[in-house]
Amino acid sequence: MINGSESGPAPASSGNPSASGAVLDLLGLLAYAELGAFFRLADDAELAPSLADKGELAGLAATEYAHYKLLRDRLEELGADPQAAMEPFVEPLESWHTRTTPQSWLESLVKVYVGDGIAGDFYRQVAELADARTRELVSGVLSETERAEFIAAKVREAVADDPKLAGRLALWARRLVGEALSQAQLVATQRPDLAAMLVSEGADSEVGDLAAVSRMFARLTDSHTARIQAMGLTT
Amino acid sequence: MINGSESGPAPASSGNPSASGAVLDLLGLLAYAELGAFFRLADDAELAPSLADKGELAGLAATEYAHYKLLRDRLEELGADPQAAMEPFVEPLESWHTRTTPQSWLESLVKVYVGDGIAGDFYRQVAELADARTRELVSGVLSETERAEFIAAKVREAVADDPKLAGRLALWARRLVGEALSQAQLVATQRPDLAAMLVSEGADSEVGDLAAVSRMFARLTDSHTARIQAMGLTT
Repeated sequence: MINGSESGPAPASSGNPSASGAVLDLLGLLAYAELGAFFRLADDAELAPSLADKGELAGLAATEYAHYKLLRDRLEELGADPQAAMEPFVEPLESWHTRTTPQSWLESLVKVYVGDGIAGDFYRQVAELADARTRELVSGVLSETERAEFIAAKVREAVADDPKLAGRLALWARRLVGEALSQAQLVATQRPDLAAMLVSEGADSEVGDLAAVSRMFARLTDSHTARIQAMGLTT
Repeated sequence: MINGSESGPAPASSGNPSASGAVLDLLGLLAYAELGAFFRLADDAELAPSLADKGELAGLAATEYAHYKLLRDRLEELGADPQAAMEPFVEPLESWHTRTTPQSWLESLVKVYVGDGIAGDFYRQVAELADARTRELVSGVLSETERAEFIAAKVREAVADDPKLAGRLALWARRLVGEALSQAQLVATQRPDLAAMLVSEGADSEVGDLAAVSRMFARLTDSHTARIQAMGLTT
């Protein structure tokens, strides 16, 4: 397995998956994911069909910013440089965004829902493994399920109006998660400690356990299926 | 003077400058100004030299969104349709943004400072003329002077490092305010009640008082000069 020492500033050499390097990696990943989501949402708002919808998208973006700020402040509290902690994840996340540029308002809603859902899976994982303060922060972020419900309802409504949309949007959602998994695989090889922490299922998990990585991907795919159903999209 | 009746949903016929149509116009104008500023700031962040600066710009944008939300909620409280109230101002504000697209990080900082400054002048005017609840909302917005100070300091710092920048950025600031005034003149002819309220200097002001409009422009220009000095730009 490739060693992560040349790909960024966070330590990535210890075999202990709960080492602070892995927590910093995860906070950095989530922080840049939120900041990147903020900017993409603001870009996508050009697709919004009305001023009211533009306002809604801006509100979603402002929430992503608030999460970014919580994560950045936590990184600073831990004595880390937030910019250095985010840096290794800029390229994979930007690649994901570039490969999944929405072509319509509904595609951008599905992307927010799927992207937030995947982020939520990561937050839950960190909530189980990180220190108490970080756990508190993460549960604050996760408690904002209301807006996810609002998006799922908007998509369900559109699909009820025009059932042909369901298949197309389900394909789009599958592409979103496929591209996310291929970026995640790249990150996992470059940040072995982070990967180990994410796949950790107990004391017996270890760095480079590819079977555990596959099981994590399977868990992500299962949650994705649940989200597809929540949006009323056939699979 | 052109009558505003064909240009939008807000009433624009009474000679009383404090009529509710003018207040709705002003709240709609400010609301769209904030929403537009949110999206432009998010766009401009691509020019930011670092992740930390990108985060700062995202924070400024999130504040614009929070202001938008206050204004939109106030419009709803007043029984108005926020979308209809904003509509007449979308084109002039978008024209301003299109004519003043920043080409650098510093230009975008100067634009935020100048744009927020002009908006502040409008907020102050409405604070004097509108009802108590609206006044309260406006003073909440105006109390956030901290971030404006942060921007002025960033520009001053850059100019101290490279004094050649001062003249160029001062020219840019002059162009920003010039383009704003030409859009404002268009709006003033289309929304006479709004114009009358904005230029109101007491009981003797009336609709279509072009001298009063000129005096308001002169006041705006004076405040602009003060802002140029705060940013350390020669005039």
